[in-house]
Amino acid sequence: MSPIRLALVGLGKIARDQHLPAIAATEGIELVAIASRNAALDGLPHFTTLEALLASDVAFDAVALCTPPQGRREQAALALSAGKHVLLEKPPGATVSEIGPLIETAREHGLTLFATWHSRFAPAVEPARALLAKRHINTVTITWKEDVRVWHPGQDWIFAPGGLGVFDPAINALSILTRILPHPVFVTGAELAFPANRAAPIAATVEMADSNNIPIRADLDFLQTGPQSWDIRVETDAGAVVLSGGGARLTQDGVVLSDAPEAEYAGIYKHFTGLIEAGQSDVDLSPLALVADAFLLGRRVTVDAFDY
Amino acid sequence: MSPIRLALVGLGKIARDQHLPAIAATEGIELVAIASRNAALDGLPHFTTLEALLASDVAFDAVALCTPPQGRREQAALALSAGKHVLLEKPPGATVSEIGPLIETAREHGLTLFATWHSRFAPAVEPARALLAKRHINTVTITWKEDVRVWHPGQDWIFAPGGLGVFDPAINALSILTRILPHPVFVTGAELAFPANRAAPIAATVEMADSNNIPIRADLDFLQTGPQSWDIRVETDAGAVVLSGGGARLTQDGVVLSDAPEAEYAGIYKHFTGLIEAGQSDVDLSPLALVADAFLLGRRVTVDAFDY
Repeated sequence: MSPIRLALVGLGKIARDQHLPAIAATEGIELVAIASRNAALDGLPHFTTLEALLASDVAFDAVALCTPPQGRREQAALALSAGKHVLLEKPPGATVSEIGPLIETAREHGLTLFATWHSRFAPAVEPARALLAKRHINTVTITWKEDVRVWHPGQDWIFAPGGLGVFDPAINALSILTRILPHPVFVTGAELAFPANRAAPIAATVEMADSNNIPIRADLDFLQTGPQSWDIRVETDAGAVVLSGGGARLTQDGVVLSDAPEAEYAGIYKHFTGLIEAGQSDVDLSPLALVADAFLLGRRVTVDAFDY
Repeated sequence: MSPIRLALVGLGKIARDQHLPAIAATEGIELVAIASRNAALDGLPHFTTLEALLASDVAFDAVALCTPPQGRREQAALALSAGKHVLLEKPPGATVSEIGPLIETAREHGLTLFATWHSRFAPAVEPARALLAKRHINTVTITWKEDVRVWHPGQDWIFAPGGLGVFDPAINALSILTRILPHPVFVTGAELAFPANRAAPIAATVEMADSNNIPIRADLDFLQTGPQSWDIRVETDAGAVVLSGGGARLTQDGVVLSDAPEAEYAGIYKHFTGLIEAGQSDVDLSPLALVADAFLLGRRVTVDAFDY
């Protein structure tokens, strides 16, 4: 099979930090063009928009959309209509409902649509899933606290409507949670702290449950300085199962069960090539649906204005 | 077939105004008990909670949940686990995700779960759907403006988290919209006006589209005095198709095509008995998903405090 010719749309921080090295390291996929308003890459054809790329004579098979979520649906619809496979950075869109028609379009055209959740490719996630499938779960606590100024410097889109605010990182936790728990999860309450000058929350607590009424709590903060926390702690009949470092490390009662090197985006691109070869799509909207439900049900409080 | 023995849970305004007369008028269904914190009905066994009803020796087959949405999932889960068919008033719950496990439970137990959207049973809705299936649609405008003090007097739950505020009536419009349009709809932007002292919006504008990029706009207001508006106007290649009076009346370029007497809840109970007989469920979450997306994507503005 000849390599999949990929165009990357949106050459921002996540594309440079993660997508470019992962694409370079993945067999069977080849980067052939960049579409990005402001940035180009030496040695590759560059276009300022996806429309211009599609109108060019560059031949390609697939696009990876690394643009902010607010404009991604239109780009995905355009790419699918032009016969291209589509990989979506997380979150897959600015709303849950806008993704349904994309799934339909992909199906109609026999194309792959892959809504990625990079944290699900963290090395300790599948071991955690396997472990928890055999355990009785009592409670789950998510602690997801990071410094937005460090991880998203100057990224105003994250606090614009549809940018999710603190849920942009926290949806990573929810993507792990919905993967490792054996039953579907839903929101039962939330408190959302909106900075006075922003349209998305900068901190939140979310109460959840599953169909067995396991209490699940998430403490989310985007202003955490010092040590950063990306931890999921599951109290079970066999002690505390802790997934830390964003899914990198798994312990049970303090004993390390898994601590392998991080390779999330390599996993994403390997899965993408496999989906294309198999003619399949992979779109799980449950993490974004939980965020939408937290916004729907959440009590809003206004906190200090935030500036980078 | 012997009649379906129904217990009604939550004897508030909607139950008295709509459910009781519709149940009395429906063949094949019989009201046998009431569970309601504050209210009873002459001549019928009464319990203050669903739990007490289930613990009693009253024999019944199904429950209609007319309680506020915030507590409905727990009641539905309880009833399904006890082997009862369940009818949910609209909206089906306080979140979208909480309904999935109920669908699973109903399936496992071979029971009917019916998430009702009463406005879909308005007499002009199906004629509108049939008409629009044959037309090219240019734009859709929803105007849904009513006086909350008239229609929901003193109902504080409607402004509590999960109560939806102005989206409690507006979800009726969305339930019609998603029924009469040929393609799925999604939210592209929203502005939500929250009273300073309340946790749900009292007015909103919502911008939507479908996969053909038809622009759809909804203007929602809960403080409309004087004439009330429950209208959906669809501009088509064959003129303006207008569904007014909450789905009661259909006109095309001013010519009346349908104007039959209202019988929404009679339609609901007829459909419920049919579902039970056929061993089926009917749960469409798309109207609530649109509301959740409007909360997710919407820009919030604070407006004057509201008191009844």
